[in-house]
Amino acid sequence: MTLVKAYAAVSATSGLRPSTIERREPGAHDVEIAIEFCGLCHSDVHTIRSEWGPAKYPLVPGHEIVGIVSRVGESVEGFTVGERVGVGCMVDSCRECDSCLEGFEQYCEVGNVGTYNVADPRNGGAITQGGYSQGIVVDENYVVHIPEGMDPAAAAPLLCAGVTTYSPLRYLDVQEGDKVGVVGLGGLGHMAVKIAKALGATVTVFTTSPSKAEAAKALGADHVVVSTDAAQMESAKKSLNAIIDTVAAVHDINAYLRTLARDGALIQLGLPSEKMPPVDPGLLIRGRLAYGGSLIGGIAETQEMLDFCAEHGVVCDIELVSADELDGAYDRLVAGDVKYRFVLDVSTL
Amino acid sequence: MTLVKAYAAVSATSGLRPSTIERREPGAHDVEIAIEFCGLCHSDVHTIRSEWGPAKYPLVPGHEIVGIVSRVGESVEGFTVGERVGVGCMVDSCRECDSCLEGFEQYCEVGNVGTYNVADPRNGGAITQGGYSQGIVVDENYVVHIPEGMDPAAAAPLLCAGVTTYSPLRYLDVQEGDKVGVVGLGGLGHMAVKIAKALGATVTVFTTSPSKAEAAKALGADHVVVSTDAAQMESAKKSLNAIIDTVAAVHDINAYLRTLARDGALIQLGLPSEKMPPVDPGLLIRGRLAYGGSLIGGIAETQEMLDFCAEHGVVCDIELVSADELDGAYDRLVAGDVKYRFVLDVSTL
Repeated sequence: MTLVKAYAAVSATSGLRPSTIERREPGAHDVEIAIEFCGLCHSDVHTIRSEWGPAKYPLVPGHEIVGIVSRVGESVEGFTVGERVGVGCMVDSCRECDSCLEGFEQYCEVGNVGTYNVADPRNGGAITQGGYSQGIVVDENYVVHIPEGMDPAAAAPLLCAGVTTYSPLRYLDVQEGDKVGVVGLGGLGHMAVKIAKALGATVTVFTTSPSKAEAAKALGADHVVVSTDAAQMESAKKSLNAIIDTVAAVHDINAYLRTLARDGALIQLGLPSEKMPPVDPGLLIRGRLAYGGSLIGGIAETQEMLDFCAEHGVVCDIELVSADELDGAYDRLVAGDVKYRFVLDVSTL
Repeated sequence: MTLVKAYAAVSATSGLRPSTIERREPGAHDVEIAIEFCGLCHSDVHTIRSEWGPAKYPLVPGHEIVGIVSRVGESVEGFTVGERVGVGCMVDSCRECDSCLEGFEQYCEVGNVGTYNVADPRNGGAITQGGYSQGIVVDENYVVHIPEGMDPAAAAPLLCAGVTTYSPLRYLDVQEGDKVGVVGLGGLGHMAVKIAKALGATVTVFTTSPSKAEAAKALGADHVVVSTDAAQMESAKKSLNAIIDTVAAVHDINAYLRTLARDGALIQLGLPSEKMPPVDPGLLIRGRLAYGGSLIGGIAETQEMLDFCAEHGVVCDIELVSADELDGAYDRLVAGDVKYRFVLDVSTL
């Protein structure tokens, strides 16, 4: 067992405080990682504040992890000491159900083992602890390679925000010339814009803030539609093939469905805590539209996404924070005051 | 101009009464049809009772038309006098938009020209009149061939109920071994069961009436789930690849979404007049599910469906009614008291 420094919450209101946690000795199939950077995801905030149900304190969040392999188990074949790797939202799954066998570990029928706040069945039911820590030990099947030359801090959020937007864009088979809408311009939204552009799509960003227009264009968006402006929404009518909806607050998707052309799909990624307004089935019927959802991505798909991003020069736009800035960063994250993802510099722990 | 006998409504409360209507002389591209049979669709009831907005009285409903070609225009190449043909829900569309050019006339960007109750732009804006009449004149591009040997009365409802269920099953690429659910066992539902079975699927019928179980099995259903029985719904959890939802009343689709396996889709065909309950996006996200809609089918697809049904011995289960029974049949249709489609014997006009 190894002790590593970490930042943990001890209650819903404690914020994050210096702590020390135990990491297991690497088993035969394990990779031990010296963490360099960890992205701050909105899920981290929801979880440690017990907004998604009571968290299992003390708890170290973080599931956008990049670091250097420090030790490997005797049976590990895919990773070597010294190389840069990543860990995303899962550290295990049942490995036996159809979803696992088909590479869709995120949809594991038994339930994937989240990188933090989940009882880990293969490790005695210990609660998983995340990446706001100096080190982590993960089965090699749930570790990915960070491509050579990719900025490690800016790569970290790809492990969640990147693959969460890449996966539905690929599932919808978005290609050169397709027209893609992105609702919301936060951590996920800005990645959706970059990845859709890299796939060759023409991208329209929907935002409630006219002030975000310039930022959206700077990210590569071709068009910006202020969603509170009825005339702008009307002019976007039936123009898009796919919409990636990254808004996690309650919102009416019918206005966005109207901007889809025949056979278009709106994929919702965020899960509001309250009920959404009813969907108008007439919109679905008259346009053969689909309203769907998508959950992060599989492990192989995460690697594919990283390689794709490396090939196309895509990383996250980040703001690096030190450990003592975490609580303040959370408040700014909740206020939407970040372009576009905070990343913890783990050397400051 | 030709005068033909018909049954028309003159107000929302008049019911259907004997009438005479004018049909145009066949133009160069027109097919004149001596109607034999016309199915009674729930849309007919909604329309003539002005439940979908004020109808354009006097109005002859009916868009499940089968008859014999009696005359053809000089440029008609696809049809000959004496052959049996069908006309479904559309008699024209713009023919220029992407949807029309791609064979999806039902999604015409300008709006397809419905077989009744619609101003027909290529015919001076005259209100289209449907198939509860002795004859109709339709552009050959909107006429289909009834396959040899198919019972003409039982074929009539294929033109709406048949293609409306065939189209989404094909769009979802339902194949041998897929598991398909059907919600509701009326005119559309019973066709969905037969067509899904003919495509090789295992079919589960959801019904609120335990008494319908035997009837569902007689149609070919492999399983019947009483949707008001929580235990039965639980046992169907995550078991299906696709659901065809034919219920036009307000209902909660979340219970059905829970029966979809990963990547499953629920396609709603009926349009309730009131708002549906909210959809739980968590179900969509955790299963990568899709909630979609579908509108009838294109003309080429209608022909494909007829040929498919002929090959697989599929027709509708019908109850033949005479013209003087129409009002009573409507009341029974609204009460769900029909197995499974009424068809008007036009010789009784």
